Amino acid sequence: MEPYQLTATQALAKFKDGSLTVEEYARSLLERIEKRDDAVKAWEYINPEYVIQQAKMLDHLPRERWGPLHGVAVAVKDIIYTRHMPTQHNSPIYAGDKPNVDAAVVSTLRTARALLLGKTTTTEFASTATGPKTRNPHDVTRTPGGSSSGSAAAVADFQAPIALGSQTGGSTIRPGSFNGIFAFKPTWNAVSREGVKIYSVNLDTVGFFARCVQDLQLLADVFALEDDDTPAQQDDFSIEGSKFALAKTTVWPQAGPGTIAALEAGAKLLRDRGAEVEEIELPAEFDRVPEWHGIILDADARTTFLPEYRFAKEKLTSLLVDHVENKSQTSRAAQLEAFDGVAALRPRFDAIAGKYAAVLTPSVVDEAPVGTEFTGDPAFNKMWTALHVPVVNIPGFKGENGMPIGLSLVAPRYHDRHLLAVSKAVGEIFQAEGGWRT
Amino acid sequence: MEPYQLTATQALAKFKDGSLTVEEYARSLLERIEKRDDAVKAWEYINPEYVIQQAKMLDHLPRERWGPLHGVAVAVKDIIYTRHMPTQHNSPIYAGDKPNVDAAVVSTLRTARALLLGKTTTTEFASTATGPKTRNPHDVTRTPGGSSSGSAAAVADFQAPIALGSQTGGSTIRPGSFNGIFAFKPTWNAVSREGVKIYSVNLDTVGFFARCVQDLQLLADVFALEDDDTPAQQDDFSIEGSKFALAKTTVWPQAGPGTIAALEAGAKLLRDRGAEVEEIELPAEFDRVPEWHGIILDADARTTFLPEYRFAKEKLTSLLVDHVENKSQTSRAAQLEAFDGVAALRPRFDAIAGKYAAVLTPSVVDEAPVGTEFTGDPAFNKMWTALHVPVVNIPGFKGENGMPIGLSLVAPRYHDRHLLAVSKAVGEIFQAEGGWRT
Repeated sequence: MEPYQLTATQALAKFKDGSLTVEEYARSLLERIEKRDDAVKAWEYINPEYVIQQAKMLDHLPRERWGPLHGVAVAVKDIIYTRHMPTQHNSPIYAGDKPNVDAAVVSTLRTARALLLGKTTTTEFASTATGPKTRNPHDVTRTPGGSSSGSAAAVADFQAPIALGSQTGGSTIRPGSFNGIFAFKPTWNAVSREGVKIYSVNLDTVGFFARCVQDLQLLADVFALEDDDTPAQQDDFSIEGSKFALAKTTVWPQAGPGTIAALEAGAKLLRDRGAEVEEIELPAEFDRVPEWHGIILDADARTTFLPEYRFAKEKLTSLLVDHVENKSQTSRAAQLEAFDGVAALRPRFDAIAGKYAAVLTPSVVDEAPVGTEFTGDPAFNKMWTALHVPVVNIPGFKGENGMPIGLSLVAPRYHDRHLLAVSKAVGEIFQAEGGWRT
Repeated sequence: MEPYQLTATQALAKFKDGSLTVEEYARSLLERIEKRDDAVKAWEYINPEYVIQQAKMLDHLPRERWGPLHGVAVAVKDIIYTRHMPTQHNSPIYAGDKPNVDAAVVSTLRTARALLLGKTTTTEFASTATGPKTRNPHDVTRTPGGSSSGSAAAVADFQAPIALGSQTGGSTIRPGSFNGIFAFKPTWNAVSREGVKIYSVNLDTVGFFARCVQDLQLLADVFALEDDDTPAQQDDFSIEGSKFALAKTTVWPQAGPGTIAALEAGAKLLRDRGAEVEEIELPAEFDRVPEWHGIILDADARTTFLPEYRFAKEKLTSLLVDHVENKSQTSRAAQLEAFDGVAALRPRFDAIAGKYAAVLTPSVVDEAPVGTEFTGDPAFNKMWTALHVPVVNIPGFKGENGMPIGLSLVAPRYHDRHLLAVSKAVGEIFQAEGGWRT
């Protein structure tokens, strides 16, 4: 196995037993990137010299100064501020901009001694569904999804073991599904979003990509994600005898054949292993959440993009101009109704989901669409983003064109560690028998 | 009148009629600052050369490129990121740090052609009640309050007409009261807080200081604060025949003699002018809001300060170390109860407050305490910060030691413009007859 193929957990083990240096690992990844970049185009910025410089520094560190992510390469979505590398938000307003500051997540990764590889592509301000240049590594005529396009594609294509993304609608879970990898949106505000360009304060969440759940657990340690349950209680999960909910939700009519088949297959695989899978229908009030999600997004963006609008409106995508100008003519009363309406449903959903090991639900409408213009529909993600709950995309299925399709597992707020433990068990089954292996 | 004494509105008029240049104005302010800085110590960073350079640039701009704040000097709290000036958060971790990025508010001010004067003092990360070096300009043996210590003191002492602060507990309204000036905490998330160091995502709000309500209205224009009511409806406010609520709230037993007298005097002045003032008691559930405010703060800070804790725990104030380590042992369940509990009360308070022109309530426990170690108690501010509602401190009264005491006016969320119109009328009365004139 080449170093670039290693998961974060595997690479760490090799650094620890001395069978691999960070520099060797970094050079292997840089070679992989060089070879594949023309096809996949996952990067907005990468500077091999800066990568090697970090690797050499890490190799020279005495063991007692190693961190929990010693040498692990991380790709960073280009709406996340990084010292020493530009942050451009795929916006002409910020072309070449180098804010000399690390986002909270980047600072935490640096202190954990991660190796920062470079900046990955995003749709403009992670706000639109108009794709950047990036292509799906499994079929370069298709989109990798968005808005965390480059982060998901890089991880799927073995150009990085781990990547940072973000989710305001479906920007982490959707590309996770389209690229056939694990994607994790933690509980809202469980990870600091300081230094991640804001789209919606009420919805933005840092997201993570990896090729195995163990790597997500490693990140959960680094970012101090903690449930009320003790670690022992969280890890003590067996599919046999457990009970899952299956929620199609109000947007189910939008599901394509690939997702319909995947949800059926996923439920069957769980039942075959001795789990109970109970289809649930959320109370009627939940039907309004997707609409409320849109209202909150509009209203928050009206505030967020005022500076760019005032500075250079002509360089701002029309969607955001419309938000700032409140083209939808959303009243403050309607905005507050949406804000308060979703807030009231959050504890209700927690109570419902808390009765199950997790809620199984679609990640996407279907396989990644053809073309890179449109990054796909976040219809199946809005509900969970608005409810602030943790979600993991579990890859494991294939669509009619052989492209990956994942399913989402959802848990109550601040049950992130529990959800990862469940995801690990479910991921093993889906990958073993669902037809897609990451 | 010297240029440094001008309000923003007055300075703008002089720039427009050509009777004052921005450079003359800037030099007058710099002289005032030089003369008074030893006594007040409001500044963390100020570079006269950079100020004059901006002033000259503004004086050379053709009229058609002037902005709505052309040449108006603004002081910026040092937890707010600014290009060309350091941002240090009163933290040894960030000593000398120069992140090359403007916070959203600073960017909006620059585009409006404001003159950025410098960075004002703050308590560490705007999180503690331990004062910086700054003294109250009305009595240098006393605190100016905090955490926006320097911003409030600079405006009160005619070292800047306008300043940016922030509020997570009482960091804008309390120093507003202690310094005898107007202070405005808008509806949460009505002004972008991007680039303001996060303490609590759920509570942090950008705050504004000025010596008159007109200047706050100018800022409300620049920051596009918009109610559902039309501007005409908002401005059409007359005290005579209006109805105010008076809310002492659950923390009333903490009120000192100065605040007790001010609240009584304020209510009497309104009644004398023909307003009805009805004392209200909020439903019992609201009694829990101050406690919930504390829980939300703890829980949010646990996430926010993880990067600094991991990087240099020994350089972090013990309060924040305790938050990150969850020393209070707050469970996730308790955290969510607080989060959801306050969320459920927000629309209820809006409905109550919506029946009145505004809610009159204390701003502070009493006058500014002696000493600069302790910046005072935010007891009377937590409720409104947690409820996300707009608040204006109206100066106008004096305490037993002749120091200023203000009262708060509070309105439902997104009634910011309405509240400013009411504050203008009320401010005129309080200043004319309350005993304190800004």
